[in-house]
Amino acid sequence: MQAIWLQNKKLSYRTDVKIPIPNNDEALVKVLLAGICATDLQLIQGYYPYSGILGHEFVGEIIQADDAPDRIGERVVGEINIACGKCASCLRNHPTHCEKRDVLGIINHNGAFAEYLCLPLKNLISVPDCISNEAAVFTEPLAAALQIQQQVAISPNDKVLIVGAGRLGQLIAQTLLLTGCNLQVVARYQKQQLLLNNSKIAWIVEQDVTQHSFDLVIEATGSATGFDLAIQSVRPRGIIVLKSTYKDMSANFSSIVVNEITLVGSRCGSFTPALRLLANKLVDPSVLITNKFPLSQVLQAFEYMQQPGVLKVLLQMDN
Amino acid sequence: MQAIWLQNKKLSYRTDVKIPIPNNDEALVKVLLAGICATDLQLIQGYYPYSGILGHEFVGEIIQADDAPDRIGERVVGEINIACGKCASCLRNHPTHCEKRDVLGIINHNGAFAEYLCLPLKNLISVPDCISNEAAVFTEPLAAALQIQQQVAISPNDKVLIVGAGRLGQLIAQTLLLTGCNLQVVARYQKQQLLLNNSKIAWIVEQDVTQHSFDLVIEATGSATGFDLAIQSVRPRGIIVLKSTYKDMSANFSSIVVNEITLVGSRCGSFTPALRLLANKLVDPSVLITNKFPLSQVLQAFEYMQQPGVLKVLLQMDN
Repeated sequence: MQAIWLQNKKLSYRTDVKIPIPNNDEALVKVLLAGICATDLQLIQGYYPYSGILGHEFVGEIIQADDAPDRIGERVVGEINIACGKCASCLRNHPTHCEKRDVLGIINHNGAFAEYLCLPLKNLISVPDCISNEAAVFTEPLAAALQIQQQVAISPNDKVLIVGAGRLGQLIAQTLLLTGCNLQVVARYQKQQLLLNNSKIAWIVEQDVTQHSFDLVIEATGSATGFDLAIQSVRPRGIIVLKSTYKDMSANFSSIVVNEITLVGSRCGSFTPALRLLANKLVDPSVLITNKFPLSQVLQAFEYMQQPGVLKVLLQMDN
Repeated sequence: MQAIWLQNKKLSYRTDVKIPIPNNDEALVKVLLAGICATDLQLIQGYYPYSGILGHEFVGEIIQADDAPDRIGERVVGEINIACGKCASCLRNHPTHCEKRDVLGIINHNGAFAEYLCLPLKNLISVPDCISNEAAVFTEPLAAALQIQQQVAISPNDKVLIVGAGRLGQLIAQTLLLTGCNLQVVARYQKQQLLLNNSKIAWIVEQDVTQHSFDLVIEATGSATGFDLAIQSVRPRGIIVLKSTYKDMSANFSSIVVNEITLVGSRCGSFTPALRLLANKLVDPSVLITNKFPLSQVLQAFEYMQQPGVLKVLLQMDN
């Protein structure tokens, strides 16, 4: 089959990869559409020493499932963390933190930039017919956006700032708008600002952010300057959610202590609420799609994606 | 009067400082005993550009109070943050975060290393007779230790690690022992270990800390190595409380996000619960006293304090 292979920080398009054989508890899934994520870019840069098929955002169709033949033909999205079910984190009902987890396209499990992938049946969640492939492919990052509200109680009276209006920032903005909170988004590029205008979400530029006034700040840039802005804009006893991938960076810890700020690291979320919002058309992630490429043009897709202002780039499997 | 003056990072013992004149809402307090704190050391190193009389941990006696003559003769400790009562933080009932606050011996208000100080009457809290001066002088740092429990719910089943067994680490250990939680303290020096033994508090050395296993970690060293140990030892979805004074430092933010760790900055606490614990003899901070010096020997006191293993050094005002 065709697949995008990552090895020694090099991506290659291959046509000689064997179709995977599912274990008993797994299904074989034909990938219909996949999304490129910032984590994919960082894996290429060596963020984590992964070798294998890249990709973890997808929508597909079950074509083989020995333990559940009735699920064949089901259109599905897939929870990317493959948990052991037995470790301390699993027993605490935190399977995304399983100590022995494999992660689709990230840790020790071939990913979604391929014609086929395998995942445990319990990881595969049915997509209602009313959700298009172009919307369903966003289930994973949308679930990650909703994870914020799983971790932090947001009240309608809260003044909330999102630092960064890229892919994840836009999804977070769409979900937080639904809380009724007093929301502002720091948006640097015109394309980002136009998208926010279309969703009637208030945006500002960095220079206009009111200092020490926000109850909650979502840092969605992954940069030291974004983090500094978060520290500057959150009120004393306020909360900053870290919602990006970060390198080691220097930070003003004195300010965190003196202002008694709470920092919350936030990663993966549940797919079911994300699918509910998509089914009810309460969010529309497909507006983020900037371009689609066939799998064979993956190198062009990754190059294109790194241009300023580009939001979501998809890889199409139908051929 | 005698006073310890800080200017341009230089401490001096002066005998020519005028006795302060209290405002209408203030009292004049004769200082009986004062404690030297890590923040005092850092102020000398330029942590904050303060000029004036140093010192914020004290027990004293009200000797003048025009608005409350009945309080004259009262033995008191003093809340160090002097709040405006009108700003957003004050209206949110967070007076320690008042935007216009002065802070005794730290920001724009002469401190406690002197024969006399002034503080608003509402900041002065009566000390029950059963609490000695040697215990009462610890009210401020003990309140800071208790602030952890004001911010984070600790359950008796929690596995808790305190990184650092210096002055504040020891006070935190004494207070957390009272929760019944499964407590361990990382203690480097023999003197620290002996004190913990005397209080029947379990201690370990850094090398023996179990990785990613603690529900809650209190970082009480203020160092990058202490913070790294906290990150290494907290479990996924666990909490790290930052309970020290920090310089800008580099940190592993990726780990905070991937493991969805919560970081909580923690500063000053309420004096009343601290006085309750002291009155009920449930904590005994006076075991931390390593030495006492008269005010005139302040330079020797500061030099002595910086020796390894030294815990609390007090300044005595009676002369």
